[in-house]
Amino acid sequence: MSIKVVLVGQGLVATHFAVGVERIKRGEVEPYGVPLAKYKLPYRIEDIEIVGSFDVDEAKVGKTLYDVAKEAVGDILPVPDTLKNIVVKRGIHLDSLRGLPFRAKGLEDELGSVKAAVEAFADELKKLSPDVVFIAINTEPDKPFNDVAALEKAIESGEGVNASHAYAYATYLYAKDTGRKVTLVNVIPSFIARDDAIVKLFESVDSIVLGDDGATGATPLTADLLEHLAERNRYVLSIAQFNIGGNTDFLSLTIPERNKMKEATKSSIVKDILGYDAPHYIKPTGFLEPLGDKKFVAMHIWWKTFNGLEDELVVNMRINDSPALAGLMVDLARLGKVLQDAGVKGTAYPVNAFFMKDPGPRGAKNMARIRAYYQLLDYLRKLGLEID
Amino acid sequence: MSIKVVLVGQGLVATHFAVGVERIKRGEVEPYGVPLAKYKLPYRIEDIEIVGSFDVDEAKVGKTLYDVAKEAVGDILPVPDTLKNIVVKRGIHLDSLRGLPFRAKGLEDELGSVKAAVEAFADELKKLSPDVVFIAINTEPDKPFNDVAALEKAIESGEGVNASHAYAYATYLYAKDTGRKVTLVNVIPSFIARDDAIVKLFESVDSIVLGDDGATGATPLTADLLEHLAERNRYVLSIAQFNIGGNTDFLSLTIPERNKMKEATKSSIVKDILGYDAPHYIKPTGFLEPLGDKKFVAMHIWWKTFNGLEDELVVNMRINDSPALAGLMVDLARLGKVLQDAGVKGTAYPVNAFFMKDPGPRGAKNMARIRAYYQLLDYLRKLGLEID
Amino acid sequence: MSIKVVLVGQGLVATHFAVGVERIKRGEVEPYGVPLAKYKLPYRIEDIEIVGSFDVDEAKVGKTLYDVAKEAVGDILPVPDTLKNIVVKRGIHLDSLRGLPFRAKGLEDELGSVKAAVEAFADELKKLSPDVVFIAINTEPDKPFNDVAALEKAIESGEGVNASHAYAYATYLYAKDTGRKVTLVNVIPSFIARDDAIVKLFESVDSIVLGDDGATGATPLTADLLEHLAERNRYVLSIAQFNIGGNTDFLSLTIPERNKMKEATKSSIVKDILGYDAPHYIKPTGFLEPLGDKKFVAMHIWWKTFNGLEDELVVNMRINDSPALAGLMVDLARLGKVLQDAGVKGTAYPVNAFFMKDPGPRGAKNMARIRAYYQLLDYLRKLGLEID
Amino acid sequence: MSIKVVLVGQGLVATHFAVGVERIKRGEVEPYGVPLAKYKLPYRIEDIEIVGSFDVDEAKVGKTLYDVAKEAVGDILPVPDTLKNIVVKRGIHLDSLRGLPFRAKGLEDELGSVKAAVEAFADELKKLSPDVVFIAINTEPDKPFNDVAALEKAIESGEGVNASHAYAYATYLYAKDTGRKVTLVNVIPSFIARDDAIVKLFESVDSIVLGDDGATGATPLTADLLEHLAERNRYVLSIAQFNIGGNTDFLSLTIPERNKMKEATKSSIVKDILGYDAPHYIKPTGFLEPLGDKKFVAMHIWWKTFNGLEDELVVNMRINDSPALAGLMVDLARLGKVLQDAGVKGTAYPVNAFFMKDPGPRGAKNMARIRAYYQLLDYLRKLGLEID
Repeated sequence: MSIKVVLVGQGLVATHFAVGVERIKRGEVEPYGVPLAKYKLPYRIEDIEIVGSFDVDEAKVGKTLYDVAKEAVGDILPVPDTLKNIVVKRGIHLDSLRGLPFRAKGLEDELGSVKAAVEAFADELKKLSPDVVFIAINTEPDKPFNDVAALEKAIESGEGVNASHAYAYATYLYAKDTGRKVTLVNVIPSFIARDDAIVKLFESVDSIVLGDDGATGATPLTADLLEHLAERNRYVLSIAQFNIGGNTDFLSLTIPERNKMKEATKSSIVKDILGYDAPHYIKPTGFLEPLGDKKFVAMHIWWKTFNGLEDELVVNMRINDSPALAGLMVDLARLGKVLQDAGVKGTAYPVNAFFMKDPGPRGAKNMARIRAYYQLLDYLRKLGLEID
Repeated sequence: MSIKVVLVGQGLVATHFAVGVERIKRGEVEPYGVPLAKYKLPYRIEDIEIVGSFDVDEAKVGKTLYDVAKEAVGDILPVPDTLKNIVVKRGIHLDSLRGLPFRAKGLEDELGSVKAAVEAFADELKKLSPDVVFIAINTEPDKPFNDVAALEKAIESGEGVNASHAYAYATYLYAKDTGRKVTLVNVIPSFIARDDAIVKLFESVDSIVLGDDGATGATPLTADLLEHLAERNRYVLSIAQFNIGGNTDFLSLTIPERNKMKEATKSSIVKDILGYDAPHYIKPTGFLEPLGDKKFVAMHIWWKTFNGLEDELVVNMRINDSPALAGLMVDLARLGKVLQDAGVKGTAYPVNAFFMKDPGPRGAKNMARIRAYYQLLDYLRKLGLEID
Repeated sequence: MSIKVVLVGQGLVATHFAVGVERIKRGEVEPYGVPLAKYKLPYRIEDIEIVGSFDVDEAKVGKTLYDVAKEAVGDILPVPDTLKNIVVKRGIHLDSLRGLPFRAKGLEDELGSVKAAVEAFADELKKLSPDVVFIAINTEPDKPFNDVAALEKAIESGEGVNASHAYAYATYLYAKDTGRKVTLVNVIPSFIARDDAIVKLFESVDSIVLGDDGATGATPLTADLLEHLAERNRYVLSIAQFNIGGNTDFLSLTIPERNKMKEATKSSIVKDILGYDAPHYIKPTGFLEPLGDKKFVAMHIWWKTFNGLEDELVVNMRINDSPALAGLMVDLARLGKVLQDAGVKGTAYPVNAFFMKDPGPRGAKNMARIRAYYQLLDYLRKLGLEID
Repeated sequence: MSIKVVLVGQGLVATHFAVGVERIKRGEVEPYGVPLAKYKLPYRIEDIEIVGSFDVDEAKVGKTLYDVAKEAVGDILPVPDTLKNIVVKRGIHLDSLRGLPFRAKGLEDELGSVKAAVEAFADELKKLSPDVVFIAINTEPDKPFNDVAALEKAIESGEGVNASHAYAYATYLYAKDTGRKVTLVNVIPSFIARDDAIVKLFESVDSIVLGDDGATGATPLTADLLEHLAERNRYVLSIAQFNIGGNTDFLSLTIPERNKMKEATKSSIVKDILGYDAPHYIKPTGFLEPLGDKKFVAMHIWWKTFNGLEDELVVNMRINDSPALAGLMVDLARLGKVLQDAGVKGTAYPVNAFFMKDPGPRGAKNMARIRAYYQLLDYLRKLGLEID
């Protein structure tokens, strides 16, 4: 009873996922960083089977996952041989790497149109029969369609559609044409689970979309810190949060329109949790190559406490960015299948609320992670899982 | 419909409470730091009426609360005139200030025996008719009796009983003799709400005891941080937490047997929340007078994340120690009366779990504060309160 | 034997200077933050006499220094009455406040040309007869002329000259026309002491220019930290330094061309001190109003130590931005006069090296502040001062 | 022209020294953490030859340095084969490991008296002919003799002498009996270079003693930070510094009398550098095994700046404790020989002032490290070295 997984965007996140899952299968490493590892879910981590991988970086397309992983994390991790069986295939580009130092080519460049590229990718999925598809490409500018007709027109014409939406639509086509259920999991800031059009399409084919933007790093911690303060009625005077790292994600955020995508997702927590929009500066701040994937985070929060006096909190972190998200993906793969089995369609807010920075559907609120966690457990119990 | 409150131990905490409550009544300051201020409870903060205050420090006994407050916080806060109406009376000492630089004298020194002191204090309560009595004296060495007979024998003989237990027993006598309900709230590390003997006695007179050790400062935050990590199955390698301050509480912790009382209460959170006893060093670390009541906290936590990699978190804080606890006391006074009205007897774990570092009754577990908060709201709803 | 001082740019820095000097004169406050206060210089702090103040903000021009100070710092400091004697006069604007939320008008707007404004300002100086003139206006885009003819042509035509250079040239004119010596001190990032043209002009009239960009805040500390590492031959892997504050300086740095001025001055320390250009991100990062003048700084530095292992350092600060610079200005005023008395002309690198982020003359290097401090003391001893 | 080195106390520090020197010889690693590596000294790092090693831990005596190093650092560093040539011999114990979890036996246990042990150790040195002997044993309680007769009486009787002093005296005997010059370098807190008796004895045999307590970790950085503040006349309100680690050094500091040795050495910097004894808490704080040799340091310093306002600084570090000291030892070995060649006798304050926490001779002051560094360079230049 395996879960067949396709990875779209074979960057550091997807690579940590692939390496970590295989290492857990071999018993080489404990499933740390996998939230629900301590509970008995209907699917074990060992049931995850990576069946396909897509990218548009010419340095990756055509290579095995083993070679890609060796290059990316070979200096810090052993790379399992089993990854030699998967070859990275060409995906859809649509300028999603524009401005970044990669030589990229997408299916649309080969086939001449977006529509042809979408169909070609859907065809690939039909061959691979995945249960779960992850979108883990680089952060790209995006906006929601919300209207199915508008989305379909954009796909048809090739105008105004970016890679995330093209992948999402192709995944829908795969489900529609084969009658198989699929769960699309979007772990980047694009509007996928928050796009009414996407949710509607997936619902129509008994499938599920989870997203958006995997909740790792400083943001979920900030959410819980703010909840901690809110529960004591401490009045937050301001919040400053800096992030700096040296991976491709930070590099791409030196491009303003990409940075903006992140800023929005990071700021929404303030008002949602505190109940007022405390002045804040919460942004990916810069790129500093030697930090690599282990980013540095600094946060300053101060507030008024009883009798009007002021307290102050500073948090500093060094966090492995990609493994944190990869660990969440392990559970998202398992829950993706669990939800299908339970007959869920469209999207699943209780899952998104814990795992995502910007939980879909459109208009859904952020909440403190600790709260979201217990609501998730309750939700899973209601779906019939034994969680204790 | 006022709540009559007696303060035992007129130190910084009780003084911030008195000043803050009066300032809130006058509309001088917002009720920041009062957790439930945003909800409509049956009693308003304005309903709190301080009717008595007790201490054993010769520099305080006989003075008005106004004079005590002027001396303690007059440099940083305006002190309301209304505090001129309350005079600090002599309480029970029993060496609770031994080793500290105060000239202290207790009722037992005047009356010749512990038993007489306990009765004299009970008589004072009978005159004041409080609804809620707070124990906010200095941290003192203590152990639970758990057996009513043993406790009563100690009171009778004056052997092996300290100030916290003497006050607790006297408060019970007051309830028993008058038939009035009372809520005793213990915000120091003594074993009061965790002492079966005390809980049993209060239950027998339809009264309530809440405690122990008000959950302020670094410990509740640590609890929530650990919960945050546990929910992501991150494996905590070690926890170091330092605290240094310049108030009497820190001074008294330079005395090893007092420090031990704090250390126990601070460490219990690790295993209760993580599920394993991660190596930790969590202690009040030292006394540094210029820091005053605004302590400095430094915390280091690191863990294994997905793929066995290591992340690291450092937290630094400057926290006003006493106001934080005083803010909790505002709600504890209100809930103390709410519970009486609702017919609760003995103790109330859901209240303790959020407000206390070592929640009674005996053997009760610590939990993440964010969790405890929502369980508290549910509990209050079940008692019939409108919380939304 | 007073030192007559003119302040150009009556912002927070000049205001703290004025308030602090007057309070020190009255014995209200110790001269903390004044580096050489512990040494006996030929001039005492009490000898400083503020004789004039200039600004272009309509909300300040025409008001007394007392009123300006009340508005700016009246909530945190007592403002001495003696400041009622100085009225803020109109200075030169030249768009130096463009893009900022101030209504500004300069002499050039009144008089119709830059040349007329420069002459009018020089005339004002002639009336005030200052020994020392401070440029403390907002950070503005600037570049050095290095060539006297080019500078004079720009003043003549009014093209390509900004406020800092106009003020500097006018101050030169004042010295030239009156035969009085003057010391111009530039505490902002403009190229004044690093502009060969300016240095040459001042030299020609037996006068002095000190600058550029007063060395306060995180940068001098970073310099000393880097020196500390360099002296142990630790190999710095990267440096990240974030700054966020809520004063006008930070507001103006949200405008990219102004930010650039600061970034350059902050980065030059890395190579000058380490000997190699360790990868770094050192920038004023953002504006967050509630922080006010007390900025938050976060810094991360890591390095290779013996046996190739890695160490890590994080620094966090809350620093009062303007008073730090004002404290330096107290000594710069005194040294400005001391240098004149000693016959120094042009600029004085040993003074700049300690007090300035970008020490003139052009091409001069940065050095660790602790080193610069002892070299400054030696320099002063050579000028005949008794420093011990 | 090699420098023959004997290591006394084959713990982590001496092991990092041995491994690092051999790796540098092989070109495997850069000499990071060796302060003077960038200058051309008369002796290269490659000239260091380890000729002997002594310890009293039964788990080490009789093993090769290779085996000891494999056990201690084999998980994080490659261990060079060349260390197979040195066998750890039995040294003098004198309870220097009492209370620690090691099975220890000293020469005095085998030979029946302290005197015999001292002579036996001197005999070993005579066979090995070292130029430099390092004392790098565990921190032990100690006091200075200052009087040669008193020291010799203690050695004779075996009463009141500990391991550090016994080793120092034996090293003196070696120099006296052979006529060879030797430099004894004490990198632990014992009073060796600060003991008049020891300095006098070494002077009498044309030899040198350097010490005490190698200046690594948080203390030298604190020294430079305090100097930074002092140079700006900022008034330090208090200093809190916490240290926690998991190596044997921290374990031994859980024993109060050992902790005291460290506390003294760490506190002396405050008054020496600031000129007043700012309230401070500077202590090794605790033992936390998982931290291993990479300790966690937290520091809080705040001060009054200009206009009486308050600034605040927090420093956090993760520092490899032993390699930092080992790196200094590389230069101390080279300087030990350089000083001999230059005819220096007794001790050399300019070397101690930079390299040691408690620089000898007795009564010598601490100074900021950055200052000490440039004074050291000047001193070396005066000895005829080319430093540029």
